[in-house]
Amino acid sequence: MTDSTHYDLVIIGSGSGNSLVTPDFESRRVAVVDRGSGSADAFGGTCLNVGCIPTKMFVYAAEVAGTVRDAARFGIDATLDGVRWPDIRDRIFGRIDPISEGGRDYRRDADHTEAYLGHARFVGDRELEVEITLPGGRHEVGTTQRITGDQVVIATGSRPRVPDVILGSGVPFHTSDTVMRIEELPATMVIVGGGVIAAEFAHVFSALGVHVTVITRTERLLRVLDTELSQAFTDLAHERWHVHTNAQPTAARRAGDGVELDLADGTVVSGELLLVATGRRPNSDDLGLEAAGVRVREDGRVEVDEHGRTSAPGVWSLGDVSSPHQLKHVANHEARVVAHNLVHPESLLSFDHRYVPAAVFSEPQVATVGLTEEQAREQGYDVTTKTQRYGDVAYGWAMEDTTGLFKVVGDRRTGHVLGAHAIGPHSSSLIQPVIQALSLGGPTGPLTASQLARGQYWIHPALSEVLENALLGLEVAPYQDATADYDPEGEHVTP
Amino acid sequence: MTDSTHYDLVIIGSGSGNSLVTPDFESRRVAVVDRGSGSADAFGGTCLNVGCIPTKMFVYAAEVAGTVRDAARFGIDATLDGVRWPDIRDRIFGRIDPISEGGRDYRRDADHTEAYLGHARFVGDRELEVEITLPGGRHEVGTTQRITGDQVVIATGSRPRVPDVILGSGVPFHTSDTVMRIEELPATMVIVGGGVIAAEFAHVFSALGVHVTVITRTERLLRVLDTELSQAFTDLAHERWHVHTNAQPTAARRAGDGVELDLADGTVVSGELLLVATGRRPNSDDLGLEAAGVRVREDGRVEVDEHGRTSAPGVWSLGDVSSPHQLKHVANHEARVVAHNLVHPESLLSFDHRYVPAAVFSEPQVATVGLTEEQAREQGYDVTTKTQRYGDVAYGWAMEDTTGLFKVVGDRRTGHVLGAHAIGPHSSSLIQPVIQALSLGGPTGPLTASQLARGQYWIHPALSEVLENALLGLEVAPYQDATADYDPEGEHVTP
Repeated sequence: MTDSTHYDLVIIGSGSGNSLVTPDFESRRVAVVDRGSGSADAFGGTCLNVGCIPTKMFVYAAEVAGTVRDAARFGIDATLDGVRWPDIRDRIFGRIDPISEGGRDYRRDADHTEAYLGHARFVGDRELEVEITLPGGRHEVGTTQRITGDQVVIATGSRPRVPDVILGSGVPFHTSDTVMRIEELPATMVIVGGGVIAAEFAHVFSALGVHVTVITRTERLLRVLDTELSQAFTDLAHERWHVHTNAQPTAARRAGDGVELDLADGTVVSGELLLVATGRRPNSDDLGLEAAGVRVREDGRVEVDEHGRTSAPGVWSLGDVSSPHQLKHVANHEARVVAHNLVHPESLLSFDHRYVPAAVFSEPQVATVGLTEEQAREQGYDVTTKTQRYGDVAYGWAMEDTTGLFKVVGDRRTGHVLGAHAIGPHSSSLIQPVIQALSLGGPTGPLTASQLARGQYWIHPALSEVLENALLGLEVAPYQDATADYDPEGEHVTP
Repeated sequence: MTDSTHYDLVIIGSGSGNSLVTPDFESRRVAVVDRGSGSADAFGGTCLNVGCIPTKMFVYAAEVAGTVRDAARFGIDATLDGVRWPDIRDRIFGRIDPISEGGRDYRRDADHTEAYLGHARFVGDRELEVEITLPGGRHEVGTTQRITGDQVVIATGSRPRVPDVILGSGVPFHTSDTVMRIEELPATMVIVGGGVIAAEFAHVFSALGVHVTVITRTERLLRVLDTELSQAFTDLAHERWHVHTNAQPTAARRAGDGVELDLADGTVVSGELLLVATGRRPNSDDLGLEAAGVRVREDGRVEVDEHGRTSAPGVWSLGDVSSPHQLKHVANHEARVVAHNLVHPESLLSFDHRYVPAAVFSEPQVATVGLTEEQAREQGYDVTTKTQRYGDVAYGWAMEDTTGLFKVVGDRRTGHVLGAHAIGPHSSSLIQPVIQALSLGGPTGPLTASQLARGQYWIHPALSEVLENALLGLEVAPYQDATADYDPEGEHVTP
């Protein structure tokens, strides 16, 4: 135990928290504490090491494999000769791991920052003990360092939640932390979970040739989506993977080289590899928060106000550990707000959680922003919706797309757009104009679907026309726009 | 010669013109005259029959072939076994031709419309003679029909322009009208031209295995683009195709089964097939416009005012034959304006040609809207630009993209976005938020780059982040936004 070292700012977590070290802190002392993320035990947080970044690299490789398999449909004869899993994995982590290490060394070596590679626990107000568990910093592994900060930010993120039935059974299993680094592809895989992570890995491993079984306790996959699209996604999933809905594992055991699960209805499913993807829990436990007077919500999230302040003076929190949205773009936004607030106590900024979009990089890709049809009805709107098929606009037709859907939810009375939900190629980019419309509006306030569709050009025949046509197809009560009273045939494929 | 038949509205051209037959005309009589488009001699205009729609279907097949060839880079071993050109061609036209015929029959058979399949010439004020040249209508081929209209719309489009040196030489050649229907792929192809059509077909045929030579008289391909991107595109083209810039064919002759061209510098180039893609001219000649008092500009376009009115009362024009933009989305817009104006003489709408985007579906894809850097300088702006590499955002990184660029042009003084120009995957959709920002602005008027970037969420790690980062990278003079004064590391791939 050394004497306590004091910093102007202590940040626990090197994901979005790491971006708090803005130029404002160049003349101040900052400590970044991190105990590593997942199997890599690496600096840089979930997104970089075991989340968005590597998964999307696997997803793209999976899409290449899918395109090869599907090429004949377009008159291109192709053979998928093989999938070099170790090469894919090593290409990806061969690029990511050095970035993680570079980020760590940069914090360690800069004059005004210090990296503590271990687990932090509050022992008092803005006072922490860090047990050093990883090499690569200045502090020896096994030592405990005491640090204090004028301000402390809790940005410890989240980790996979594993059901007791799996955990208690003693069967070997993977989570998103480990499954991307496996030695070789299994022939079969059982995925427990029906959310984003399950949907993305089912796509990746299935496209790479693994026989995938998905078990979800809910009726539909991606059930937080608009029901129509969640159902459409689930229907497609049934064609691609072996999906058990309304299913609950009641027991798990080793069987041969793999794992066997009993489901509540008596079905037995098995696979060489078990992937648990049943959500993520905030890393708020084991931080000694009670010693610091930091309150935690019932669901385990650190309690923060709209400025990112916890219940303890001088202690802030952001990202997965406290946010209602476990999304990197939200954590980044919260980090920008907190970065400002740390140095501008006189003019605090607030989190903006109004129009938070989300995407799932599965097959098909999914994107969503704003109100679902159900939410809009619950909120009392006179709801109007239009679901546009990708295959009915020119570029979707060129892609021979038969499954893509772009749904717009609107207020029939005013014509305003309330939300958009899509399953189909590139939906995570195609949805941006709706995010922009909801967030920024137009010169006279909120935009109607007609203003959004007709107030700008949409390149013909770009895939963005699927959104244009969804907007045009929305039936609204009033006469919204002099040039929008009919749907010109020339913009559809069919004349 | 029959007696004259009178209509409330006569439309010459069945492309965008065909969309003028709105519900407003249900109780009026409308004639649509068309002599066919290109090799198909088909109803429905250039876009449907020989333009945007079929080209993009070929482009997508070309992209599939490209993905197969490039798969090994992603750890996916694949073999391109062959390209079934006749199947690609027949799949595409097997879908398009029935739509064209259906559109024609729909006009022919509806109670209030009539289709004249032949060539129209004005013989007086709003009075035309139509020489029937195609079967499929009610009028016998070879007859001449005389029709008059209370109002007449000239929407005859454009056709390929062929240089005299080719035309005079007597060598066989193709244009975009015919090249998509060839019997089999040649081994080699010479493309004369360096614009959009040349760039798209060079991509298509090259990806399908044809050795492509491109000859352009200009220094760069796509020279109307922002110079930086035009140069980048040209550099890439040199790697993919055999490109002769600053080159002018001086003679053409048959050679073996193909064609040989002499260039001004003495070089001789040859190929099995010659494709002429040197621009398109308005179909304003041979319409007898002088007999109707319709004035034509020096460049051959029908002269119209902002409402689409020609110099002859009751005669309107829209689309390629009169527009400054040979783009389907512009023609559609002009058709909507004219459709309104035909029935609302008391409240005329105007064409909006302020922020017209355009795309080139080549390899890479190109998109542009607003001012280029050069145009912004010419207009006296204190110009600031940022060129963001696709490969430096997460999804571009996952795609292993090494060539994509997204450039934003801004006003350093105000921070306002003036234009955006991109070469890279899906740029035709990714550019939409800039089109929207320029066209609709925000609650307080024009949007700054910072407001556009920071006033909304961008899904991480969607490809749309390439635009977000381009906007954030723009250096501007004033302090635009409290949360935008630094570039948070978490949103870049590199920490």
